[in-house]
Amino acid sequence: MITRTLAELAQHVGGQVQGDGATLISGISTLQSAQGGQISFLANSRYRKFLQTTQASAVIVAEDYAAECPSNALIVTNPYVAYARIANLFVGSLVCDNGVHPSAVVSASARLGARVTIGPHSVIGEGAVLGNDVWIGAGCVLGRNVAIGADGRLEANITLWHGTQIGQRVLIHPGVVIGADGFGLANDNGIWIKVPQLGSVRIGDDVEIGANTTIDCGALEDTVIEDGVKLDNLIQIGHNVHIGAHTAIAACTAVAGSTKIGKYCGIGGTVGIVGHLEIADHVQITGMSMVTQSISAAGVYSSGTPLEPNSHWHKNFARFKQLDEMWRRIKQLEAQLEQLNHSLHQKDNQ
Amino acid sequence: MITRTLAELAQHVGGQVQGDGATLISGISTLQSAQGGQISFLANSRYRKFLQTTQASAVIVAEDYAAECPSNALIVTNPYVAYARIANLFVGSLVCDNGVHPSAVVSASARLGARVTIGPHSVIGEGAVLGNDVWIGAGCVLGRNVAIGADGRLEANITLWHGTQIGQRVLIHPGVVIGADGFGLANDNGIWIKVPQLGSVRIGDDVEIGANTTIDCGALEDTVIEDGVKLDNLIQIGHNVHIGAHTAIAACTAVAGSTKIGKYCGIGGTVGIVGHLEIADHVQITGMSMVTQSISAAGVYSSGTPLEPNSHWHKNFARFKQLDEMWRRIKQLEAQLEQLNHSLHQKDNQ
Amino acid sequence: MITRTLAELAQHVGGQVQGDGATLISGISTLQSAQGGQISFLANSRYRKFLQTTQASAVIVAEDYAAECPSNALIVTNPYVAYARIANLFVGSLVCDNGVHPSAVVSASARLGARVTIGPHSVIGEGAVLGNDVWIGAGCVLGRNVAIGADGRLEANITLWHGTQIGQRVLIHPGVVIGADGFGLANDNGIWIKVPQLGSVRIGDDVEIGANTTIDCGALEDTVIEDGVKLDNLIQIGHNVHIGAHTAIAACTAVAGSTKIGKYCGIGGTVGIVGHLEIADHVQITGMSMVTQSISAAGVYSSGTPLEPNSHWHKNFARFKQLDEMWRRIKQLEAQLEQLNHSLHQKDNQ
Repeated sequence: MITRTLAELAQHVGGQVQGDGATLISGISTLQSAQGGQISFLANSRYRKFLQTTQASAVIVAEDYAAECPSNALIVTNPYVAYARIANLFVGSLVCDNGVHPSAVVSASARLGARVTIGPHSVIGEGAVLGNDVWIGAGCVLGRNVAIGADGRLEANITLWHGTQIGQRVLIHPGVVIGADGFGLANDNGIWIKVPQLGSVRIGDDVEIGANTTIDCGALEDTVIEDGVKLDNLIQIGHNVHIGAHTAIAACTAVAGSTKIGKYCGIGGTVGIVGHLEIADHVQITGMSMVTQSISAAGVYSSGTPLEPNSHWHKNFARFKQLDEMWRRIKQLEAQLEQLNHSLHQKDNQ
Repeated sequence: MITRTLAELAQHVGGQVQGDGATLISGISTLQSAQGGQISFLANSRYRKFLQTTQASAVIVAEDYAAECPSNALIVTNPYVAYARIANLFVGSLVCDNGVHPSAVVSASARLGARVTIGPHSVIGEGAVLGNDVWIGAGCVLGRNVAIGADGRLEANITLWHGTQIGQRVLIHPGVVIGADGFGLANDNGIWIKVPQLGSVRIGDDVEIGANTTIDCGALEDTVIEDGVKLDNLIQIGHNVHIGAHTAIAACTAVAGSTKIGKYCGIGGTVGIVGHLEIADHVQITGMSMVTQSISAAGVYSSGTPLEPNSHWHKNFARFKQLDEMWRRIKQLEAQLEQLNHSLHQKDNQ
Repeated sequence: MITRTLAELAQHVGGQVQGDGATLISGISTLQSAQGGQISFLANSRYRKFLQTTQASAVIVAEDYAAECPSNALIVTNPYVAYARIANLFVGSLVCDNGVHPSAVVSASARLGARVTIGPHSVIGEGAVLGNDVWIGAGCVLGRNVAIGADGRLEANITLWHGTQIGQRVLIHPGVVIGADGFGLANDNGIWIKVPQLGSVRIGDDVEIGANTTIDCGALEDTVIEDGVKLDNLIQIGHNVHIGAHTAIAACTAVAGSTKIGKYCGIGGTVGIVGHLEIADHVQITGMSMVTQSISAAGVYSSGTPLEPNSHWHKNFARFKQLDEMWRRIKQLEAQLEQLNHSLHQKDNQ
């Protein structure tokens, strides 16, 4: 069990202690579930109602809430960031079965760094280069010439296809497929001819990729995911997409081929982005939006229609087809009314 | 081959025989494809046209259609439910290669119930507890401390990550990932800090989970799927989501973190539900809806716009941006018209 | 390294050489990246700006652009198709580790054609029939009675479930699941009863299936994918769906059960298509459309609303709920205005 004093935690996150800095903390939990010896946090005002009754030995709070904290408080500017940093302290190190499991199949031409783990039934192809402390779980398949930087972690049942290049400290969750062929097709009189996908995928440092997400290789050049990008589950990244550093994308979003997304963007879940667009830095797109044009300015963007009781919705749904007609009829009404006002005015002046 | 008399089938589903109860039935098929010796069913009126010409030896029908049934009939209240119950009779038992395949890697600390099957190349982590008659196919990976109740079935290439708890009679299809990290990130001046995902996933009895669906573990507390929930393929369930008993969700739907869905709900396919919402019991949401607010009353809810020929759609699509302006211009027209009527009325009275 | 003269390439694609047909070509790249000895192509006018400065030894162009091509030119009707055909020449043959890897588990009742490859840790079930030159990568699981035609290729970590039938030259990317149970449920007073999925999946020749896509087996009859169909990543094909020959579907699209899609269709990404519909041949549906009704005529179809800055969108989003009311108020305004004009006209005539 990992234990820290409240003062040590405050130092770790650059915060201030209100109360007893010698209090021992050995875990983190929610306001509702925390017990003595644990620290909790208040990062979202909707949970404020649980503050008075928490059993936590200390609570991470912003200055505004320090006065009403019934226990010790750790006062910080950003309680959610402080919570993340402290929770990471309590995770402890993962128990690693260091070494190559006897059932793994590792090509003779693969080069393995120090303390590399390769789990049961994983397959490492020709020319692979695995950095120090890379941890590969069970059932992973690495094609030819895959490179993974130091401290990379592949959970289980992951496929990295030929030529995929991955930076340092990258975390990949189960079921991910990186480097499969992009959807490149040329239409020859109705029959689709496959366009060979000859590029690869390059992924930067500190990237995280969620379960069952797919990232296609490039057609001629590479698909690129820059440093610090965070991808949720079941995301599709098409061939030759370029995602700028520190952009986060939520689950089930699809980015079509050759689109370039800027740095520090936040894309919601189940968004659809068509191909060959450019999206600027610092763009936020809310969930389920449809993006059909490039975005050149930072800001928050949305599309979609509201949820309604089905019978109401059905009427409005049908009227959508008459939206342009409604526009024209409004214009006509305005013209007719102006005409009428004009003729009445003339009559008054006669 | 499994064979039953029509009378036995009627007893099994609580229905009545019209015709010869001694008729032998050894299979089930559609009205169009059934042959002699098979039973069919009419559960959807669009297939009524096939009733007259079916070769089935008997047809499961509601009372209203019994008179026009050319063969023996099995009359029930709900033909689709009766079809499901009878089809289950004819499935027979799956041929199970009981026992642990020599290529499977099973931790010494795992506890296996009676008649457990573990398929080729599957990996069972430390502390696993598998109930009686659990069947695990090939290529599955179970992390530490996974528990699966009696009669559980994992098809193939499935990953259950650390601490996942699964009830009895749960069926999981290939490619499913349960218990991978939720998408928890704290933003520290543009840089994302990973929030450790310390919770787990708890799944009740009689749950079915479709191919390549992902269910994330909780951040601090658990993600919970209650008894009898049915999930289709490629669904994303975020961290700390809670799905009430007997709710069914169709394919490609995404439920963001901490949302609570009630019991007996039906959610269509490709729906997006944002995080931190509460959805009441007995709510139906039609396919492709966007859900951005909590739903407090049972009922059917929808969103979305109609499919149109592209050139028509394009005009209406563009007008959507002027919807609020149109509203204001209608109000202005109404005010102007009222003003005009008012002044004309005054003039008439002068 | 594969090398061809420009004249040989012209003959291969039925094009004409402008310049030196003896020029040696040993690779293909983009206009921006190509070097001496490589051929490039201009298939999309947005890349025309790179034509003047390309270092390529030859460029595949349509006749209109031949005059401004600074290097040798290969003039063809459809440069993208010619690019695809030429790029396929330069791919070369994949290095195949022919034979069955010792770690693979192959049922004694499986029948293997000539030159079949089965990768590490793959599992081939009872009754499998694999044609000549079938290549199966690592970690694939084939259930009972799966058949794969000649020259089929399964990349890695793929599951083909019981009875799946696949034609010749089919390419399947990692993580694909074919033949898992469809989402068949009968509701018995709130409790879902599983409807056994007794059908299978039949896939034609020259089909390509993208990473982590799922295709469910039929309930009673089969799910069918005809010849030449191309499916992108993370697509869901429900039970008993029928997809006509040479139709292409982009990523993250869901097709619900029993829907029949025609031949030569193009379906965009993240489209949702409800069940039991019929879609004609030669239908194009743009990305993110919602399809709730059958489509009986060829053409391009769309739905959805435009992306806007969030504050603008929020106003229009709210007004959508009043669309039917707006329609009725416009009609009322028109009636009132007509009434007013009528009474003024009468007054003038008095």
